[in-house]
Amino acid sequence: MNEFTSPRLSVKRIADSTVRRLSAYLRFLEDFEQRGLSTISSEELAKRGGTTSAQVRKDLSFFGSFGKRGLGYSVPELAGRLREILGLGKEWRVVIVGAGKIGAALVQYRGFRQRGFNILAAYDNNPEKIGRKLEGIPVRDIEQLDKDVPREHPDIVVLTVPSDQAQAVVDRVVRLGVKAILNFAPTQLHAPADVAVKTVNMAMELEGLSFALTNRD
Amino acid sequence: MNEFTSPRLSVKRIADSTVRRLSAYLRFLEDFEQRGLSTISSEELAKRGGTTSAQVRKDLSFFGSFGKRGLGYSVPELAGRLREILGLGKEWRVVIVGAGKIGAALVQYRGFRQRGFNILAAYDNNPEKIGRKLEGIPVRDIEQLDKDVPREHPDIVVLTVPSDQAQAVVDRVVRLGVKAILNFAPTQLHAPADVAVKTVNMAMELEGLSFALTNRD
Repeated sequence: MNEFTSPRLSVKRIADSTVRRLSAYLRFLEDFEQRGLSTISSEELAKRGGTTSAQVRKDLSFFGSFGKRGLGYSVPELAGRLREILGLGKEWRVVIVGAGKIGAALVQYRGFRQRGFNILAAYDNNPEKIGRKLEGIPVRDIEQLDKDVPREHPDIVVLTVPSDQAQAVVDRVVRLGVKAILNFAPTQLHAPADVAVKTVNMAMELEGLSFALTNRD
Repeated sequence: MNEFTSPRLSVKRIADSTVRRLSAYLRFLEDFEQRGLSTISSEELAKRGGTTSAQVRKDLSFFGSFGKRGLGYSVPELAGRLREILGLGKEWRVVIVGAGKIGAALVQYRGFRQRGFNILAAYDNNPEKIGRKLEGIPVRDIEQLDKDVPREHPDIVVLTVPSDQAQAVVDRVVRLGVKAILNFAPTQLHAPADVAVKTVNMAMELEGLSFALTNRD
């Protein structure tokens, strides 16, 4: 992921890494909930997350006060608050631009729907794909975006087009009012400051591993 | 990505976020190289990366001294050094376990080969897939791992199996000596401290966007 293309929030400047930890805390809390645990200390959350309890408290302090000294956090309360903070209470409308293999893999990814991310449609410019279905999702002509976006108001556009087409799609959907883009094209994208762009760079992830392998004892 | 499953390097404890920035700096430098620029200041690198020049200098300081005060960094020199730090000088041998849609998307991902990640084979437990090819890469029986890993020494295992099978594959390849895993299953994995595990969590990326959309002005 590219931390450099993260959204500039003018109210709360929360680092991407903090938001990621919040997502992870929520996962642990949901696991605790399933196991019937009602309270958890910052130490336990930290241990589970491989971080420090000071970091846990600092991360949560951005969003008000949680937990009682010595009693820990209420698991359902903190989980509920984190869902709220992460915007998981509502349903997010997602469209995928690029009906290739990555698009297909994403459409069938169960984690999305579980979290309230509802994929409305996929778009492509390949006449052989247009009109077909991608794992049950209709593939529409990319030209239709101009008509569909103002009517269907997708919240998030997932970009899985080739690198050399990515910026043109960004410009197009930004012009149509889209404010959040998840980009899988291995290229740097430019968008206005009020548009959140996240780039998933697979090669960069592998580089993290090659770094680890190279810098071993 | 999950920063919590990052490798514990006992020599150099470098944060995942630092390694990611190094990857990004390298991309910018390669872009500058292509445009024929020979030097760059930390300010320019910072501006391109949406970070501060102090951060750039701090990130690079982990790895010795670079650049000359007032003269900036030599673009080819710094790019070369970053490639070295990130372990991109050598070829990394990669196998994919799970020959589904994500596996197929990864096999055809050009960014991997460009960076020296060489995909040797894919593995699956589905008899209909075994013996076929996935974008030109042979799909082998997952049982063959026990024989192949000691012989072919893959450096990195990419895991694209369903969540409930992921830990068993991790245990298996760890026992066979694999030290780096890139995991696409939306689950928490356990591995010994000397094994680097990175989890690509697509839903977590979308949560970063829903957070940004929720916490707007």
